[in-house]
Amino acid sequence: MKGTILSIAPDANIIDITNEVPAQDVMGAAHILAGVVPFFPVGTVHLVVVDPGVGTDRRGIALSINGQHFVGPDNGLFSLLVNRRQPDRIVELDCEQFWLTQAPSSTFHGRDIFAPVAAHLATGRSLDDVGSRIDDLSTMHWALPITDRQGIQGWVVHVDAFGNCITNISRETFEAIRERRAFKCYAGNAILDRMANTYAQAQPGDDLMLFNSEDALELAINRGNASEMLDIRKGTSVNIVFLDDRQTDGDV
Amino acid sequence: MKGTILSIAPDANIIDITNEVPAQDVMGAAHILAGVVPFFPVGTVHLVVVDPGVGTDRRGIALSINGQHFVGPDNGLFSLLVNRRQPDRIVELDCEQFWLTQAPSSTFHGRDIFAPVAAHLATGRSLDDVGSRIDDLSTMHWALPITDRQGIQGWVVHVDAFGNCITNISRETFEAIRERRAFKCYAGNAILDRMANTYAQAQPGDDLMLFNSEDALELAINRGNASEMLDIRKGTSVNIVFLDDRQTDGDV
Amino acid sequence: MKGTILSIAPDANIIDITNEVPAQDVMGAAHILAGVVPFFPVGTVHLVVVDPGVGTDRRGIALSINGQHFVGPDNGLFSLLVNRRQPDRIVELDCEQFWLTQAPSSTFHGRDIFAPVAAHLATGRSLDDVGSRIDDLSTMHWALPITDRQGIQGWVVHVDAFGNCITNISRETFEAIRERRAFKCYAGNAILDRMANTYAQAQPGDDLMLFNSEDALELAINRGNASEMLDIRKGTSVNIVFLDDRQTDGDV
Repeated sequence: MKGTILSIAPDANIIDITNEVPAQDVMGAAHILAGVVPFFPVGTVHLVVVDPGVGTDRRGIALSINGQHFVGPDNGLFSLLVNRRQPDRIVELDCEQFWLTQAPSSTFHGRDIFAPVAAHLATGRSLDDVGSRIDDLSTMHWALPITDRQGIQGWVVHVDAFGNCITNISRETFEAIRERRAFKCYAGNAILDRMANTYAQAQPGDDLMLFNSEDALELAINRGNASEMLDIRKGTSVNIVFLDDRQTDGDV
Repeated sequence: MKGTILSIAPDANIIDITNEVPAQDVMGAAHILAGVVPFFPVGTVHLVVVDPGVGTDRRGIALSINGQHFVGPDNGLFSLLVNRRQPDRIVELDCEQFWLTQAPSSTFHGRDIFAPVAAHLATGRSLDDVGSRIDDLSTMHWALPITDRQGIQGWVVHVDAFGNCITNISRETFEAIRERRAFKCYAGNAILDRMANTYAQAQPGDDLMLFNSEDALELAINRGNASEMLDIRKGTSVNIVFLDDRQTDGDV
Repeated sequence: MKGTILSIAPDANIIDITNEVPAQDVMGAAHILAGVVPFFPVGTVHLVVVDPGVGTDRRGIALSINGQHFVGPDNGLFSLLVNRRQPDRIVELDCEQFWLTQAPSSTFHGRDIFAPVAAHLATGRSLDDVGSRIDDLSTMHWALPITDRQGIQGWVVHVDAFGNCITNISRETFEAIRERRAFKCYAGNAILDRMANTYAQAQPGDDLMLFNSEDALELAINRGNASEMLDIRKGTSVNIVFLDDRQTDGDV
């Protein structure tokens, strides 16, 4: 993919966000993408290829949000992004003259379609040059947790390299429902009830919950691997129950 | 190595193809290299260091093929490349003034010899500046499978991050011998007889064979890890037997 | 972090040294850093974030040594560097206008403080712009081995991807104490007494000691994984005893 990009856009500054997304993990990639986008400058072209359906009839798309471009398969990768902010424009990639070849490989559209389209966008082409307008894209229901006044049911969307377990529960959702009540959070083999601002507020080896640097609820163990120690994996459900009879003054 | 390059060629655009080649895996690196080269532009300098013999008398070389340069140890890394296309020029790296030091470390020629030579080539030096012409380089017999009319014996040269098993059997070799006959492919604990164009043509969990994006025969499991499930590793032999009495209309 | 940098310094040439430092491994990161610094050009800004204490009151610092800048938490990451050469200047990062936000996340100062400060240094800001002068920084006692005339007690500070075990014992320290005596080196389940210049001087599968490309003593097995085969991990002590009654003519 990098070779394809440099062949079209020799001056492109190519940045690897990560090459460590587990195979087929659309949900994890969607999470990582949504987390990093706010920190990139206007004009960035994000090339996102986690593509279990490559070679099927799933569409290839490009979209723009807030001056940044995104290119990849239409399989839900952009679900979290578009939940936060409506795209300004979406196109289906149907202009073959911007592909590497009119006969793309059936197993590697990243190299043959998405990378060349991204490179052309980087050199100044517009979305309308590379595809035809469409109105919507695929989104995934896992993007949002289930909530009522008693509690929140979410799940783990990503386990990072430290074993920290990031959920799909945002600080905003949590605070709106909590209303300063005490709570219990059931996940894996643990019941967590402590909120912290930072890992080091817990003793080494103790579990904690915090809102991470993207304001997503995270389950962690100070200087330990929460995923292994609490038996929590990507997809594990996280159930938070609020306790009506116990008010808290706010733990953090 | 990157520090060495930037000290000599501050404007070099350094791209990581991969830092994930297993230790000592010359065969795997040769495969990856041959796969990516066609997609890089003329003028690219490929720095390739998988170097189990560092500090012995194996030569350091540079070569050019089709307007691209290659620098690394002469241990077979370039076998697959030169099978496909004869180098335009090969030199042995014997001009110490282009090294980082006249007394290179005996364990890290990548940093002390290959990276500085690659950087000098990137700034416009020619092969003849950095070494003396030689006529040939080391090639490895594993580069090509054994064939006769009844079948093909190849082996797995690379297992990718998804567990897909890439063989040294090219589409061209396979089709030339097959002549539309049905076949059985023995590898690991499996007998495969299905050819597909794309992973998704098999049911999730089913095995399949396909020609990958470099036209090499690949053994895979749709949404599964073929290496683990079929007990196939790098080096595992892959035996294809063609069945004379069963014609097929072509499965894909 | 890369997005933050490019938002401030669009022309920055961002190089990944490694993203493979194990979680919380300050000692390993300090070793890698000290090894690569001599090969980078003057003007390089090194952004080093291994930060188990993020969100506590550990300081954020920047320093300059020999025309290169360093930014990161003050937790010992720079111990090996400053053992070798005194910093020209050290500042505590207290100028919030150079941070991404005046309310940085409590879990990711890499993105919110260190990356933006590094980017501002890359665009030409001075250390005095981004912080207030301080006189010293945290250093770690593990940086140096314990020595007397009979021997050296060091430990393994890093295990590389090949399983080679790099110690905190420098060639200079070893040679100064050895005085050409024979020796035995106790580490893990092995007693090593062979010094080599290069891996290939030992038979495949045999252990050896050598000074690596950073002149640190390394325990290795030719074409094998010393860490696994000798049961040596990061932190394992390495005891070298010199034998007074046995002179050697020098083994390498």
